[in-house]
Amino acid sequence: MTTQPSRARRSLWMMGLESDEPSDQQRAERARELSARLGREVEAPQIARAEDLDLRAPRIAPPDALAGFCLQDAWNRAYHSYGYDRTSHHLRRHYPNPPDVVAHPRTDAELAAVLEWCSDEGHCVIPYGGGSTVVEGVTPPDDAGPIVTIATDELDQVLEIDATSRAARIQAGVFGPHLEDQLRPHGFTLRHFPQSFTGSTLGGWIATRSGGHYATNHTHIDDFVESVRMLTPTGWWETRRLPGSGAGPDPNRLVIGSEGIFGVITEAWMRIQARPTFRATAGARFATWEAGYEATRQIVQAKLWPSNLRLLDPELARSSAGMDGREALLIVGFESAELSQRANITTAVEIARDAGGVIADDDIAVDDGTGAPTGRSGAVGAWRDAFIPSGGGAGVGGTTAIGGTFETAITWDRWPAFDAAVREATIGVLREVCGGGTVNCRFTHVYTDGPAPYYTYAGVPPAGADRDEVHRAIKRAASDAIMAGGGTITHHHSVGRQHRPWYDLERPEPFAQALRAAKRTLDPSWVMNPGVLVDPT
Amino acid sequence: MTTQPSRARRSLWMMGLESDEPSDQQRAERARELSARLGREVEAPQIARAEDLDLRAPRIAPPDALAGFCLQDAWNRAYHSYGYDRTSHHLRRHYPNPPDVVAHPRTDAELAAVLEWCSDEGHCVIPYGGGSTVVEGVTPPDDAGPIVTIATDELDQVLEIDATSRAARIQAGVFGPHLEDQLRPHGFTLRHFPQSFTGSTLGGWIATRSGGHYATNHTHIDDFVESVRMLTPTGWWETRRLPGSGAGPDPNRLVIGSEGIFGVITEAWMRIQARPTFRATAGARFATWEAGYEATRQIVQAKLWPSNLRLLDPELARSSAGMDGREALLIVGFESAELSQRANITTAVEIARDAGGVIADDDIAVDDGTGAPTGRSGAVGAWRDAFIPSGGGAGVGGTTAIGGTFETAITWDRWPAFDAAVREATIGVLREVCGGGTVNCRFTHVYTDGPAPYYTYAGVPPAGADRDEVHRAIKRAASDAIMAGGGTITHHHSVGRQHRPWYDLERPEPFAQALRAAKRTLDPSWVMNPGVLVDPT
Repeated sequence: MTTQPSRARRSLWMMGLESDEPSDQQRAERARELSARLGREVEAPQIARAEDLDLRAPRIAPPDALAGFCLQDAWNRAYHSYGYDRTSHHLRRHYPNPPDVVAHPRTDAELAAVLEWCSDEGHCVIPYGGGSTVVEGVTPPDDAGPIVTIATDELDQVLEIDATSRAARIQAGVFGPHLEDQLRPHGFTLRHFPQSFTGSTLGGWIATRSGGHYATNHTHIDDFVESVRMLTPTGWWETRRLPGSGAGPDPNRLVIGSEGIFGVITEAWMRIQARPTFRATAGARFATWEAGYEATRQIVQAKLWPSNLRLLDPELARSSAGMDGREALLIVGFESAELSQRANITTAVEIARDAGGVIADDDIAVDDGTGAPTGRSGAVGAWRDAFIPSGGGAGVGGTTAIGGTFETAITWDRWPAFDAAVREATIGVLREVCGGGTVNCRFTHVYTDGPAPYYTYAGVPPAGADRDEVHRAIKRAASDAIMAGGGTITHHHSVGRQHRPWYDLERPEPFAQALRAAKRTLDPSWVMNPGVLVDPT
Repeated sequence: MTTQPSRARRSLWMMGLESDEPSDQQRAERARELSARLGREVEAPQIARAEDLDLRAPRIAPPDALAGFCLQDAWNRAYHSYGYDRTSHHLRRHYPNPPDVVAHPRTDAELAAVLEWCSDEGHCVIPYGGGSTVVEGVTPPDDAGPIVTIATDELDQVLEIDATSRAARIQAGVFGPHLEDQLRPHGFTLRHFPQSFTGSTLGGWIATRSGGHYATNHTHIDDFVESVRMLTPTGWWETRRLPGSGAGPDPNRLVIGSEGIFGVITEAWMRIQARPTFRATAGARFATWEAGYEATRQIVQAKLWPSNLRLLDPELARSSAGMDGREALLIVGFESAELSQRANITTAVEIARDAGGVIADDDIAVDDGTGAPTGRSGAVGAWRDAFIPSGGGAGVGGTTAIGGTFETAITWDRWPAFDAAVREATIGVLREVCGGGTVNCRFTHVYTDGPAPYYTYAGVPPAGADRDEVHRAIKRAASDAIMAGGGTITHHHSVGRQHRPWYDLERPEPFAQALRAAKRTLDPSWVMNPGVLVDPT
């Protein structure tokens, strides 16, 4: 295998496939639109092909026995250098330390062989799922020696379905859509739809504690993992299929969120669900962003467990749902495979109205299993269309504008002051560096004890500015404010290399010591995803 | 402080207070009843007072600076030798290795001082919460050197309530009833009611991954921990208050279930709830035990999230709920602080009836916040009265009969065969050793992917038999069957010293290595609760 002809190539510079890339003309039009909106000149420069890149020659070659699945071509090495942050790097052909080898193991034996080779030789190993990281979780450190990226894309099958227990054994490298395609004929769904759904994998979701599309109750991948299988340099970590257990600290929970520092996740038994057929949604308008908090909090604390409970600030409500730019929008949705959600939406609407929300009758929709479209019209419908797969940034891909996202979680008591501080810190840098810009927020997930706010920012750096440095300055200011305000450095984007300084502040020091000791034991050569989560000393 | 005069003394030989102990006459009557029921002679022997015990003299004395809260009296040393397994040990005055010192620290500084002393001197440290363990989680190993048990009972306050976020900062040593007493005036509840509720503490619940009374959705203590504070020999492990986070493996989850091997938990921010006022319950009878599975599975998979979903086998339905001994009983209950549960119970009743359940009209009760009693009559009411605090065993305390419990969790696909194998293994030993006995089962918790069955056994060992060895033989057979059948060695009783051999089989070997390395780093002298979860090599 010298290439992977059976797989559609993914884009080197945007999320999605090469075949999804806009034409040069489309990019030029988009740049003109952005210029008008942002009041600054935005361009759509030439984009290099993989073959045009001047990559450092590989420093190592795989042993002959591994050559069948270990590739070294330009596309593989360039593609696997980045996650979703690939855009600006590719625009300026910035590939300082691409992987020397990209392995695509097809079996346990092939995976074990490549991991043994790397551990014995001290080559860095970077596990690579869908490559949807926005925090440099798969980027080789600039100073890293020989690098072997292990892509899991050949491990993409649903191997077994236990319909009685509603669980499935699934290989870790399967992308979201392909996973759902394999469950659908059996009437099931994993019902895990992170915003990166089309470009991320089961293994990546587990390694990064992915948050699903659903806003309350079981939405994090953590809750769906029944058992997991991971190969560490010292052997297989395989847990039992158990609905629940109280036997010591949960061994799954040390794998979930481990971001490749212990090993490569190869498969998991996942809790699956019957496909929903009953749905109900409503959209509530609030006079201000602040006015929406109370309804949101009361609905989640009433434990109705809506599948959707998203509060959008006025600007997002405008850009995503066609609203007037002054009102905030709270979208509430329920779904079930078994039961009408009419009573739930009625209750949620009552709570929202009592808390000051205005809900138009045509923004309440109930589908009692008839298949009638629900929440696909009005503000809710407009928002839904905009959600997947719009992804990070603010639609600035392929232009000289910049956009990005960051997210956190915070308890309700701290929330309003926290929001003000985080926005002020972020807009402050945008003003200083870009002469202005936008910062917006929505709740992606809501807990009884607090929301998970998700921020987007956009701006246009001055001509000749170091775009990465602009991103970093914005991110630094936002992250400092998040830490100072008591939040988490990431609610579901994971730590990667970008969040390390703040992650180190957030976690308890004894936990860092425990993690370091565990890694030293399981990965004695310290080859697994170096620079992520912990350092050797 | 040479004793703790302010605290009511707990019984040396049963769960509860000394003042709860039955009189000699009551015990004699109970022995006669058991003799009749079990067809074997059951006695009610004399019970020793603490002062009568011939305890080994303490091998160490606390430094003067610690003497104010480090006790060495007979009651303290005897009481803290055991958990709920104290009955048979005390009957035969079996105290081979009582703690030398029992510390009752009242402040962070006192706790740090005693932990430093132990770590420096290499004295074993056994954290002791309520002492409700049934698996020897607090028993000094027979061969352990000087032992300092650290009781957390002086740390019993709710320190802070955040009503907006519905969370409270609570000291770890508070017992269940006292905790609820402190939350009640504010309209809140932790809503965590393990069967051990009256005799266990918040810190114990966290250290052992306690399962609450509630049968589905959020019931494990794991879900209620917002942040936790633990003192390890190398420093404080304190996590942020966060509604959710995706920053690396969850540091709370390595504390939860750690059973004292890393440190002493001193407090936690816990998610609390408004006190329920809406309730609805129903009892469904099924022709056989097996006939109840399908209804149970369908109700949990419909995600109605009942607070109660307990299937009792016919013998338990007879002894606990006054039924005929042939039919099984499924108890379904809902509760909420905010919303009527009428729709939920109606749906659950429909599902149960469709699956063959017989539900009498007077076994359906709905309280829409009026305070009318619900589920307190009929079979459901009889069962409720029997549940708390009947506890382990089968009401054989203070007699020569033996009784015990064990519990596990298993996926639905394996369930019926698993149940048969576990019962057969257990009754086999009872037949062999006791000439017969009883084994019964109920589901205490139910998950979409499987039930958590809870077994009780009872029998009468021959006169002169080693009662502990009889327990051990039963437990060995049951545990072997659980492991062979794919279950977990414990769903919520924790591992302690009793479950170690099977726990070692259950957990992945790399996880054991990680745990060992983490402990070695945090507890370099390896003094924390030795023998539990991991060994030094």
